[in-house]
Amino acid sequence: MYPVITISREFGSGGHSIGMQVAEKLGIPFLDSKIVEEVAKESGFAKEYVKQQDEMASYPELFITSNIFSTNYFDTPQEQIQELQSNYIIEQAKKGPCVIAGRCADYVLENAGIPALNIFIHASMEYRKKRVLEVYGETDMKIEKRIEKKDKGRKSYYRYYTDRKFGDAKNYALCLDSGILGMDKCVDFIIDVAENFGE
Amino acid sequence: MYPVITISREFGSGGHSIGMQVAEKLGIPFLDSKIVEEVAKESGFAKEYVKQQDEMASYPELFITSNIFSTNYFDTPQEQIQELQSNYIIEQAKKGPCVIAGRCADYVLENAGIPALNIFIHASMEYRKKRVLEVYGETDMKIEKRIEKKDKGRKSYYRYYTDRKFGDAKNYALCLDSGILGMDKCVDFIIDVAENFGE
Repeated sequence: MYPVITISREFGSGGHSIGMQVAEKLGIPFLDSKIVEEVAKESGFAKEYVKQQDEMASYPELFITSNIFSTNYFDTPQEQIQELQSNYIIEQAKKGPCVIAGRCADYVLENAGIPALNIFIHASMEYRKKRVLEVYGETDMKIEKRIEKKDKGRKSYYRYYTDRKFGDAKNYALCLDSGILGMDKCVDFIIDVAENFGE
Repeated sequence: MYPVITISREFGSGGHSIGMQVAEKLGIPFLDSKIVEEVAKESGFAKEYVKQQDEMASYPELFITSNIFSTNYFDTPQEQIQELQSNYIIEQAKKGPCVIAGRCADYVLENAGIPALNIFIHASMEYRKKRVLEVYGETDMKIEKRIEKKDKGRKSYYRYYTDRKFGDAKNYALCLDSGILGMDKCVDFIIDVAENFGE
C-alpha cells in the first residue's frame, strides 16, 4: 500500500502541480481544496481566508512556543483554523493513502504517530519568477516581491506551528529542485519512492 | 557530458559510499583521498590532519565573516588547508566531470563560477548508529556521542567557510534520506539526474 505523502513547497516551485500529478498517477486522493472546504464549513470562516492559512506571516515571535494541540480561549482565528485542518488531515490519513500539500502536514502526522513520506519541492528565484508569471500572470506587485512575501509567510507559518526550519533537509525523505530536475522527473522520483516505501 | 557532482553528507549516512558508487558507475574520478594526499604534500601537514579538516569544529563564531579566498599572515592552519583544498578542487573540476565528497565543494565551485550538481545525503540518528557500528565498529566513545560530535564538526566547518546552514535544502538539487530510500536508490537517482543535467 502506498504511504500518505506530504508535499511542502516553495511558492512558484510547481510543488502543488507535482503533488496533483503524483496523486493522479497513484490513483489516490489529492487533499487541497477539499481541506479548505471542510474547514471553512466547520469554522464558518470564508474559504479565501482558510486558503491563505499557510501563507500568513503575522505571528509574533513571542508566541513561538505555542502548540497546535492546545485548545484554549486565547486561540487566534489562525490557530483555530490550523487545529481544524490538523484534525481533518489526521482523519483523512487514517482512512488511507493520499497526497497533502502544505499545512505542516509532515509535522501534524508525525505528532499523530502516522508514518508519511515527506517531500520538499524548491527552486531558484529565477525559475520561480518565470513560472509564477506563466501560471498566475502579472499583478500590481512585482513578481520577486510577491515570491518573497509568500516565502516569508510559509516560513513563518511553518516555524510557528512546528518550531522547525522550513526546508531543512533532515525533515524530508526527498528534497527536489524542480528547476534543475524538471517537474516530470520530480513526479517520477516521488512515485518511485512511494512504491517502495517501508519495504 | 556529465556534470561535476558534489556530495555533502552527514556522518554515517553512507554518502561517501554513495558518491564512490556514482563515480564508478559513471566512469568518472572520485576525489577524496587524492585531495588529502595532494594537500598534505603541498602543505607539509600530516595526511591524518588534512583528512579531518571538514570535521574540525574549533572556529570561534567571531571569525564567521572570514573568507576562504583571502590569504594573509593570520590564516590558521585549517584556513591554509581549506585554501589549498579549494584550489585543488577547482583545478580538478576544470579538467572534467568528477565526484567530490565534502569540503564545501558546492560553495567552492559556485564561487569559482563552475556549474555543479549538488547533492546532500542524510539519515535518521537510528539508521546512522546502526551503520556506523557496522562500518567502523565500537570505540571507547558511545556511538551517539561520536555521531553528534561529527555532526557538530561538519556543521561548524560548513558554516565557517560558506556562511550557510549545512543541510539547507535550497543549496542542493537533490537531498536524499538514505535510511528511507536505501543506498542503491540514492545512487540511481543521482545518476539519473547527472545523465540529464543541463539539458
